[in-house]
Amino acid sequence: MRRLRSRVRRRVTLLTDFGTADGYAVAMRGVIATIEPRAVVEDAAHDIPPGDVTAAAFVLARYAHLFPAGTVHVVVVDPGVGTARRAIAASIDDRLFVAPDNGALSRVLHAGRSALVVALENPAYQRLPASATFHGRDIFAPAAAHLAAGIPLGELGPEIRDPVRLDTPEPVRDRTGVHGTIVHVDRFGNLISNIPASWLEMGARVDLAGRPLGPVRRTYGDGAPGEPLALIGSDGLLEVGVRDGHGARVLGAGRGTPVTVTR
Amino acid sequence: MRRLRSRVRRRVTLLTDFGTADGYAVAMRGVIATIEPRAVVEDAAHDIPPGDVTAAAFVLARYAHLFPAGTVHVVVVDPGVGTARRAIAASIDDRLFVAPDNGALSRVLHAGRSALVVALENPAYQRLPASATFHGRDIFAPAAAHLAAGIPLGELGPEIRDPVRLDTPEPVRDRTGVHGTIVHVDRFGNLISNIPASWLEMGARVDLAGRPLGPVRRTYGDGAPGEPLALIGSDGLLEVGVRDGHGARVLGAGRGTPVTVTR
Amino acid sequence: MRRLRSRVRRRVTLLTDFGTADGYAVAMRGVIATIEPRAVVEDAAHDIPPGDVTAAAFVLARYAHLFPAGTVHVVVVDPGVGTARRAIAASIDDRLFVAPDNGALSRVLHAGRSALVVALENPAYQRLPASATFHGRDIFAPAAAHLAAGIPLGELGPEIRDPVRLDTPEPVRDRTGVHGTIVHVDRFGNLISNIPASWLEMGARVDLAGRPLGPVRRTYGDGAPGEPLALIGSDGLLEVGVRDGHGARVLGAGRGTPVTVTR
Repeated sequence: MRRLRSRVRRRVTLLTDFGTADGYAVAMRGVIATIEPRAVVEDAAHDIPPGDVTAAAFVLARYAHLFPAGTVHVVVVDPGVGTARRAIAASIDDRLFVAPDNGALSRVLHAGRSALVVALENPAYQRLPASATFHGRDIFAPAAAHLAAGIPLGELGPEIRDPVRLDTPEPVRDRTGVHGTIVHVDRFGNLISNIPASWLEMGARVDLAGRPLGPVRRTYGDGAPGEPLALIGSDGLLEVGVRDGHGARVLGAGRGTPVTVTR
Repeated sequence: MRRLRSRVRRRVTLLTDFGTADGYAVAMRGVIATIEPRAVVEDAAHDIPPGDVTAAAFVLARYAHLFPAGTVHVVVVDPGVGTARRAIAASIDDRLFVAPDNGALSRVLHAGRSALVVALENPAYQRLPASATFHGRDIFAPAAAHLAAGIPLGELGPEIRDPVRLDTPEPVRDRTGVHGTIVHVDRFGNLISNIPASWLEMGARVDLAGRPLGPVRRTYGDGAPGEPLALIGSDGLLEVGVRDGHGARVLGAGRGTPVTVTR
Repeated sequence: MRRLRSRVRRRVTLLTDFGTADGYAVAMRGVIATIEPRAVVEDAAHDIPPGDVTAAAFVLARYAHLFPAGTVHVVVVDPGVGTARRAIAASIDDRLFVAPDNGALSRVLHAGRSALVVALENPAYQRLPASATFHGRDIFAPAAAHLAAGIPLGELGPEIRDPVRLDTPEPVRDRTGVHGTIVHVDRFGNLISNIPASWLEMGARVDLAGRPLGPVRRTYGDGAPGEPLALIGSDGLLEVGVRDGHGARVLGAGRGTPVTVTR
């Protein structure tokens, strides 16, 4: 039993808006290494736009399920640090999550089959006295390290049943077609919508804010350089972009831009 | 004895101004992995502003003490590479440090209770022939890897007693109040001063370059959006910022801006 | 035999143009961790300029050989993702490589003594169904993880003998001197040429696009602040820069700018 346990390499991922140049992200690594030296810590990103909880929630849902069961995913995009907002940890399907209770876990909660959420209230698993401005170091990193060390979720605090959920736009279908919204813009300028591939019919034609983009293609290479086009992206969602170009800039579009699919 | 040793996972952190896109930072990882494959290497940051030794010294002091005893912290912000400036390693309290002798270790030396500093002169622990422009790969990474592998500090070179120290501004107290200086600006635009929380009295009022900021608050959420305010930051230092805004830009302030606290 | 094997920590490095903020890079980490939890994954860079295969090839060649034998180096700079371009893996001397077949491995293939290259065609080592736009997650990360786990290269697909090679400019020597080209510009603005140190004679004088830079110096500190100068960089190549300045901007030069060395 003990032998088996010592072979488990508990893994922690970090998603923050801290940047790296100020030492905030690595401070979290130091705290984790001190509490659970065997934890394998992997950077997801530290350059989420400052305070952009919506982006954090979207990005987290892209990779969380790709990691092995037992991985502890930490999100610290926390414009309300030090206010009354709660700090939470969650077990969703086979993975663990630690975050401020501001909606950062919305999408993984929505996608999960079963979830248990607790408020991080047990001071035994905090770095005391906790600062009012850096819960990443004092609340979230300690919680993640203790979970990685095998402390049961329920030890960290009482269950809560009302974690904050972002008001995520959902696509709708009517007689005229499917009406969705751009929900994320990536580094390449590709515009990712909330319309799932399964909602699209053969021969469907895509419109971005009224601009016709033609039928759905397979990959960016199917367009001419500079040509706007629509395709099914790697998340299984309808995506709009420009081959060899920055779609968001070329098309003047961004989060919230409407996308319509008609036959 | 041997068994015990093999369980120690020696940890190395890297703080540089190399960026990542040119392969300099990962070259250091390669050298370390070849010399001591068991070392766990963690990126602190590679985006310190080019040549900004003052920023490196400040940031290092934020996280160095949070890591477990035995961690080897490497700093390579080294505008004088290839000149007569020395390369050094230091044992400060229970942690090890490797850096150019340009003041990067000033703050951890100042904060440490006991320190031993050596010059990296032993060619047996260098990558030879060492280039004149990339001591990160040829001098500092090998030194860190050998320290992580258990080589005693004294093997790397002779002790020195005069490591370079930056002329760090110190706050002063007089009858009118406390007079300090902004010493760091972070990614969020928060302005961190050199005035420790312990110097502040109840009811103190803060001035940034003559602009009154009112009493010390607890967290950014205590201000109205866009309102400049002062609070005690996570380093235990007086800090100035703007809720949901970039304080340095809004207030036209930066490193060197004077801060005054009066009753 | 088994015991020995379990001590090998297979190492994977990642070089991409994905950035980090969208979760693409960490998705690759998740896939690798699931297939081979013991793999040690190290970030080389995720900020290669989007689609710049030439830069990726240059940077890879800087660090690949510094890692221990057996390391798996992954490159995903892949503007042709989803088109007919092949995906490949290669064994070059003692290291393994995984990349799109677009020239990203040109320089390591050129520098290697022996190479075996295969096309990644075996679906048993892919994440199925593979998306048309994210082969980093679905093709390259699985291949790397399986190689790190000890799967022989030949299992991944059939050998190919014609991997794509970039048309890399080569320096030439004639009676008047050595004629080369800038092949990379780094974060500091230093301009790295394709002229090896071994081609330079004592007393040689350097010209950048007709601008005389004087003799070859030893390090940047040998120049006055703001002075353009030439030296042998850490790759053993002639390099041009400006002390305490951004050479590329000051000199109006970049990739492709001609460099001449005369006696």
